[in-house]
Amino acid sequence: MKLLVVNPNTSVEMTAAIGLAAQKVAGAATHIKTVCPTFGPRSIEGHYDEVVAAAGVVEQVRAAQAWQPEGIIIACFGDPGLDGARELTSAPVLGIAEAAFHAASMLATGFSVVTTMTRTCIIAEHLVHRYGFERRCRGIHGTDIPVLALEHCSGQTFETMVSAAQDALLKDRSGAIVLGCAGMATVCQALQDRLGVPVIDGVAAAVKFAEALAALGLKTDKTGDYAQPLPKEYVNWQGFD
Amino acid sequence: MKLLVVNPNTSVEMTAAIGLAAQKVAGAATHIKTVCPTFGPRSIEGHYDEVVAAAGVVEQVRAAQAWQPEGIIIACFGDPGLDGARELTSAPVLGIAEAAFHAASMLATGFSVVTTMTRTCIIAEHLVHRYGFERRCRGIHGTDIPVLALEHCSGQTFETMVSAAQDALLKDRSGAIVLGCAGMATVCQALQDRLGVPVIDGVAAAVKFAEALAALGLKTDKTGDYAQPLPKEYVNWQGFD
Amino acid sequence: MKLLVVNPNTSVEMTAAIGLAAQKVAGAATHIKTVCPTFGPRSIEGHYDEVVAAAGVVEQVRAAQAWQPEGIIIACFGDPGLDGARELTSAPVLGIAEAAFHAASMLATGFSVVTTMTRTCIIAEHLVHRYGFERRCRGIHGTDIPVLALEHCSGQTFETMVSAAQDALLKDRSGAIVLGCAGMATVCQALQDRLGVPVIDGVAAAVKFAEALAALGLKTDKTGDYAQPLPKEYVNWQGFD
Amino acid sequence: MKLLVVNPNTSVEMTAAIGLAAQKVAGAATHIKTVCPTFGPRSIEGHYDEVVAAAGVVEQVRAAQAWQPEGIIIACFGDPGLDGARELTSAPVLGIAEAAFHAASMLATGFSVVTTMTRTCIIAEHLVHRYGFERRCRGIHGTDIPVLALEHCSGQTFETMVSAAQDALLKDRSGAIVLGCAGMATVCQALQDRLGVPVIDGVAAAVKFAEALAALGLKTDKTGDYAQPLPKEYVNWQGFD
Amino acid sequence: MKLLVVNPNTSVEMTAAIGLAAQKVAGAATHIKTVCPTFGPRSIEGHYDEVVAAAGVVEQVRAAQAWQPEGIIIACFGDPGLDGARELTSAPVLGIAEAAFHAASMLATGFSVVTTMTRTCIIAEHLVHRYGFERRCRGIHGTDIPVLALEHCSGQTFETMVSAAQDALLKDRSGAIVLGCAGMATVCQALQDRLGVPVIDGVAAAVKFAEALAALGLKTDKTGDYAQPLPKEYVNWQGFD
Amino acid sequence: MKLLVVNPNTSVEMTAAIGLAAQKVAGAATHIKTVCPTFGPRSIEGHYDEVVAAAGVVEQVRAAQAWQPEGIIIACFGDPGLDGARELTSAPVLGIAEAAFHAASMLATGFSVVTTMTRTCIIAEHLVHRYGFERRCRGIHGTDIPVLALEHCSGQTFETMVSAAQDALLKDRSGAIVLGCAGMATVCQALQDRLGVPVIDGVAAAVKFAEALAALGLKTDKTGDYAQPLPKEYVNWQGFD
Repeated sequence: MKLLVVNPNTSVEMTAAIGLAAQKVAGAATHIKTVCPTFGPRSIEGHYDEVVAAAGVVEQVRAAQAWQPEGIIIACFGDPGLDGARELTSAPVLGIAEAAFHAASMLATGFSVVTTMTRTCIIAEHLVHRYGFERRCRGIHGTDIPVLALEHCSGQTFETMVSAAQDALLKDRSGAIVLGCAGMATVCQALQDRLGVPVIDGVAAAVKFAEALAALGLKTDKTGDYAQPLPKEYVNWQGFD
Repeated sequence: MKLLVVNPNTSVEMTAAIGLAAQKVAGAATHIKTVCPTFGPRSIEGHYDEVVAAAGVVEQVRAAQAWQPEGIIIACFGDPGLDGARELTSAPVLGIAEAAFHAASMLATGFSVVTTMTRTCIIAEHLVHRYGFERRCRGIHGTDIPVLALEHCSGQTFETMVSAAQDALLKDRSGAIVLGCAGMATVCQALQDRLGVPVIDGVAAAVKFAEALAALGLKTDKTGDYAQPLPKEYVNWQGFD
Repeated sequence: MKLLVVNPNTSVEMTAAIGLAAQKVAGAATHIKTVCPTFGPRSIEGHYDEVVAAAGVVEQVRAAQAWQPEGIIIACFGDPGLDGARELTSAPVLGIAEAAFHAASMLATGFSVVTTMTRTCIIAEHLVHRYGFERRCRGIHGTDIPVLALEHCSGQTFETMVSAAQDALLKDRSGAIVLGCAGMATVCQALQDRLGVPVIDGVAAAVKFAEALAALGLKTDKTGDYAQPLPKEYVNWQGFD
Repeated sequence: MKLLVVNPNTSVEMTAAIGLAAQKVAGAATHIKTVCPTFGPRSIEGHYDEVVAAAGVVEQVRAAQAWQPEGIIIACFGDPGLDGARELTSAPVLGIAEAAFHAASMLATGFSVVTTMTRTCIIAEHLVHRYGFERRCRGIHGTDIPVLALEHCSGQTFETMVSAAQDALLKDRSGAIVLGCAGMATVCQALQDRLGVPVIDGVAAAVKFAEALAALGLKTDKTGDYAQPLPKEYVNWQGFD
Repeated sequence: MKLLVVNPNTSVEMTAAIGLAAQKVAGAATHIKTVCPTFGPRSIEGHYDEVVAAAGVVEQVRAAQAWQPEGIIIACFGDPGLDGARELTSAPVLGIAEAAFHAASMLATGFSVVTTMTRTCIIAEHLVHRYGFERRCRGIHGTDIPVLALEHCSGQTFETMVSAAQDALLKDRSGAIVLGCAGMATVCQALQDRLGVPVIDGVAAAVKFAEALAALGLKTDKTGDYAQPLPKEYVNWQGFD
Repeated sequence: MKLLVVNPNTSVEMTAAIGLAAQKVAGAATHIKTVCPTFGPRSIEGHYDEVVAAAGVVEQVRAAQAWQPEGIIIACFGDPGLDGARELTSAPVLGIAEAAFHAASMLATGFSVVTTMTRTCIIAEHLVHRYGFERRCRGIHGTDIPVLALEHCSGQTFETMVSAAQDALLKDRSGAIVLGCAGMATVCQALQDRLGVPVIDGVAAAVKFAEALAALGLKTDKTGDYAQPLPKEYVNWQGFD
C-alpha cells in the first residue's frame, strides 16, 4: 500500500521527522512517501502561514497523483488544503487534526488539545467545530513552544508539555490528550507513559486510519462535493484542462 | 491481535455471519472471536430490544476479559452498551454505528444512513446527535426490511436497498451510504459497485479502526468517566467486589 | 390514579425510601406502587451499573402492565431504560432527570445539578444534551458522596451538599439546584430552605408531572417510535410473541 | 390553590373561553381567575401585536399580585411577557407554548406544531429554539385560520386542522401534535380522537404543570435573573419605587 | 437620509446623549431624529422594564412613519421591540446589540460584552444565542454600574469599565469589547485607546450600518414574517384598521 | 477613504466588473482599488480552485499594504484567505459572503442563497455554519450557471436566476435572497425588482460595511488571533523577517 504524507511546511528536517514517525507505525506492507511543498513557510503558526501552506499541499497532492497513492495524509494540525486535496484524488485523504479527533473520540468521553503557539488555538477551535467535535473537545491549550523548537525536543520542552497536559486534564476533566502539532510525534509515547491517559499523535492516527480505509476499498467520493476540479484556465499555476 | 466481536442479538446465524464479515477484512495477524449474549432478542428492532441487548453486551464483554481482547466491537447499529463496555476493559471498544459514521466523515462531506425498520431510525438519529455527526449525516432512511430477512438477502431485498440508497443520495445530496445494520455487511461491496459512492459497513470499519488503535497502543482511558466499575453488591447478576 | 415507581437499583431500603418520597407528594387519589428489579446493582454509579439496571427497569415495567399503571416513573437520575419502557406502555413514562430538568427550566433561567460520584456527571451531561437543556443547565457537580451513604444522610453529608450547591450557584450563576440522585429526595426541602433558591427533586417532579399528564388523558404515543415492541423470539428472557 | 390565567389579547369572548378551558382541567381545589389586559389587540397574529400584548401581560400580572396567585399562566402561544412576568412574582409562571413543548417531549420522540396564521410560525420557531426543543419539534405548520375564527370553530375549520395535523405527522414523522393557539383548546380532545396521537393544548398543560409546581412548593427563583424589578421612575406607567 | 433613533427608555437626558452620539458618527447628509416613548421606565435594567419599553418602541416607530425614516435604530442593548418595529416599516431597523455583534464579528475571532447590571446579562445572552453569535461571543460581564450613572460617567466609573474589560479580554481570550449599554457611547473612544483592541458602541455601529443598507436601497422584507401588521380592533391602543 | 477590493480569481474582465460594482455603491470620498492575484484560476468553482485563490488573496493583500488601504474586500463568495488577510493588516477585512449574510440577517428572519455551480454549495454551507448563520440561512441553491457565463449575463441566464430565486423563496419560506457569486452583482437590482424581496450582492454590502467600520475608526484586532504573522523563513514566497 502506498501512502503519501504531505508535510505542509517547508522544513526539510521536520519533513524527514514526520516521515520517520509515519513509517514507524505503518504496516509492513505500507510504503510511505513523504514530501513538502516547493514554496511556503518553514513552520505554520498562524492563518497567513496556513493559507500559503494549503496551496503547497494541493501542489504536492496533485504532483503525486502519477505515483498513485492509495492514501494521503496532510501532516499539519490545521489540516490545510484538506478539501482541495480530496478533489484531486480518489484515495482517502486525512488531516492529522481530523484523524486525532476521531481517535480520541473512540477512547474517552472528552479530550483536550495541547498545541504550540496560543495564537494557533483558534485554528484548532475552528476545526473542532467544523468537524463536529465540539462536545468531545473540552479545551485547546497553547504552550507557546515554537514549532521549530520541537525538532530538538529538549527535556525542558517536554516538561512544559507534561505540565500543560496535566493542567488540561484536570481543568477540562478530560480523559485523553491530542497533540496539536505534527512535530510532537516524537514525544507521544513518553507523554502517554507520564500521563496515564491515551495521548494521540495525529500523524500516527492518520497513517493507521488511511491504511484501514484503503484496506476496505473505501475511497473519497467523486460524485459530488469532492468531484475532480473542473477544467479551466489557470494563470502561472498548474490547472486542469 | 485478538479482537472480540459481540453480536448483541442472540441469532446464532447472524453471529456467525458477522464473524465471517469481520474475519474477511481483518489483518492476517488478527484473531477474531465472535460471541452473542446468553439471553435476549433474536433481532434488535426497537428500544426495548436494545435495552435487553445492551445488558447482554456487557455480560459478554465482561466474560471475555479473561481472554484479554485487544479490541472489542459491538456489532449492532444502535451501539448498545457501548459506554458500559468501555468501563469493563482497557481495550478500545467500538460500536459499528460510531465506526461507520467516523469512516463516512473521512470520505464525503455528507452521508446518508440506510437502515432496516423505520422505527429504528430514531435510534440512529440519537446516536448521530450524541456523537456529533449531525452536520455530516444528512438523512436516515428506513427500508422496513426486517433484520432477520437480511440473513438470506434475496435479489428483491437487495433491489429495495439499492433503491432506498439511490433515493437517499439524491434527496440528501450525500456522497456516501452508511449501512444501518450489521446484517447488511454481505451486500456492502455489491451496493458500492451499483451506487458508485463509498458504502460503509460498520462491522468492517470497526474491525479496521480497532486494529488501528490497538496497533498504536491506544487504549480506553481508565482514569475518569470510563474507569473500572466500582465494587458493589449485585443481585442475581455478576458484579464487581 | 395508579402510578408505578421503578427504582432501577436493587436496594430494598432505597426502594422503600423512594416510595415514601413519591407518596408524600402524590395527590390524595393517587396510588403509588414502588418496585425494583429482580437483578442488578444495589446502586448505580457508572455506565456498567446503568446498563444492567436499564434491563431491570424494562423487566419491571413489563411485569407491571397487568396492574395497568396510568403513569410510570423511573427513579434513577440517569433515566435508564426510558425509551424502552415507553415502548411497553401507553401510560406516560417519566425519568426523574428529565422531570427535574423540565421543572427547573420553568423556574430559573439556568440551573446546576449536584450529584453523587463525579464519574456519573458524564451520564447527566449526556442526558442534558440529549433532552435539549444544554443552555439551561450551567454545570454538573459531583460531590463524591456514595449513593448508599444517602440512605442515612448525616449532618456532614448534608453540609457537603450545601457547600457543593452554594459553590455551583455562584460559579454557574444559576438560579436553581437539581438533585442528581433519587436518594437525595429526603434533603430537598432542607436544602431549599438553606439555599434560598428552588431545589428540585426529580422523584417529586416526576410524580406530579405524571399525575398532570394522566389527568389530561395524555398518553405515550404508540404510532411511531414508541410503538409496542415487535413480536419475536427472545432467549432466556420474556419477549413478545 | 389560586391560579391566574392571563389572556394576552383583549377579546372578552376568548378570555372567557380560555377560562373555561382552564377550569375544566383544574383540580377540585384550584381556583382559576382569568383576566385580560386593559389595552391591546383583540388577537395576536404577529410581532407588533405581541409586543403590545406583552406589556398588557405584565400589567395584569402586576395588578394581580394583591390576589396572591400561586401559579400564573400566560395563555397565548407566543408566551408574551414571560420573563417580565417572572420578575414580578415568586409564583411559578408558565407560558402555554413552553408548557405544551414540555408535555409533548414527555410523550413522543418528536412533535409538530399546528398553528393559525403562517406568519406567526416564526414566533413559535424562535421559542422552540430559545427553549431548547429544536430537536424535538420537527415542524411548525400554519393553517391560516384567523385566531378569532376559532371562537366558533365550525366543522370546516376543524377539518382544516385535522388535515394540517395529518400532513404534519406524516411529513415530520412526528408522534404528537401541539396546538399553536390558546383558542384551539376546545377542539383538542376531538382532534386527539381523530388523529390517534397525543394532542397537547398548552392551556391545559400549563394549568396542570402550574398546579404540580405549586403543590411541590417550587417557586420562581428570586435571587438572580428573575429578581424583583428594581425601583425606579416610570413615566405614565405603574413602576416600582 | 433620515434616520430615526428610538431610545426605549424615557430618560430625556439619555435620549439627548444618544442623539448626540448618533449625530457624531452620522454622514454629512444624514438627518438624525431621536425620540423616546411617552411612557415607561427611565432606565431598562431587567425583563419587566424591557417589556414595557418594547411597547414604547413600537409606539414611537409607528408614530414616526409619517416622517418616512429611511432607517431606524433601537438604542437599548436588549433590542426591545425589534421584530415588532420591523413589521411597521419597510426601512431597515437595527437594534444596537445586533449591530454591535455584527461589527465585532468582522474585527476579531471572539468578543466580550461589558454591560451594566449583572442581572441584565441574561438578556444579552439570549440575544447572542438568538442571533447566532454564540461562538463569537466569549463572555458577558456585568459591572453593576447603574444605567443612569453612565449619564455622568466619572473617572471611577470609567476605571471600573476599564478593569472589567481587561479582565474580560484576558479571561475570554477575546479580541474586541462590545459595550452593553447605549449609555456607554461616550466612553467608547477612550476605552479603545486604553485597551488597544476594538471597542464597539452599538449606537455608532447601528447608525453606520443603517446608512449602509439604506444607501444600497435595501429594505426590510415585507412579504413574509415582517409583513405589515394585520388590521384588527385594538383596545386603548393605536392599532391598524 | 481607500478600499482595496481583491478579486480572488484571475479573470481580468471579472476584476474590472467587480471594481465597477464596488465603485458604483462607494461613497463620494471613497477610492476603490481593485486587484487580482498574479497566479491562479480564472474562476473559482470548487475547493481546489479556492485553495489556490486564497494564496493569491494573501499575496495581494500583502502587496497592497504599502498603499495603506483603510478597508479590504475579498470579492469571492467563499471568502478565500479571509483569516490570513486579517493577520496582514489592521484595516477591516470583509469577505463578500460574510458581508451578505450579515446584511440579509438585518432585513429578514431567514434568507436563501442562490449561487452558481451546485458543487460550490458546500463551500457556502460551511461558511454559513462557521459564521453562525445556520438558523438564518434556510437554503443554498445551485443554478449550475458557470461563473464566467455571468460576465455576459444574457436574458436566459437571468431568467434561470429568477426562477431559482423564486423557488428558493417558496421552498425555504425566506424573505431575502443572497447572491452567491461576485459575478452576479450586475443583476442584483433587476432581480430585486422582479422578486419583491431584498436581494443582497455581497460586493456592495462589503463595500458599505467596510466604509462603515472605517468611518468609526474600527480596525482588525491585532492583539490576539489576528496578530501580524510571525517572522520566519519562507521558501520561494514572500514571508516576514
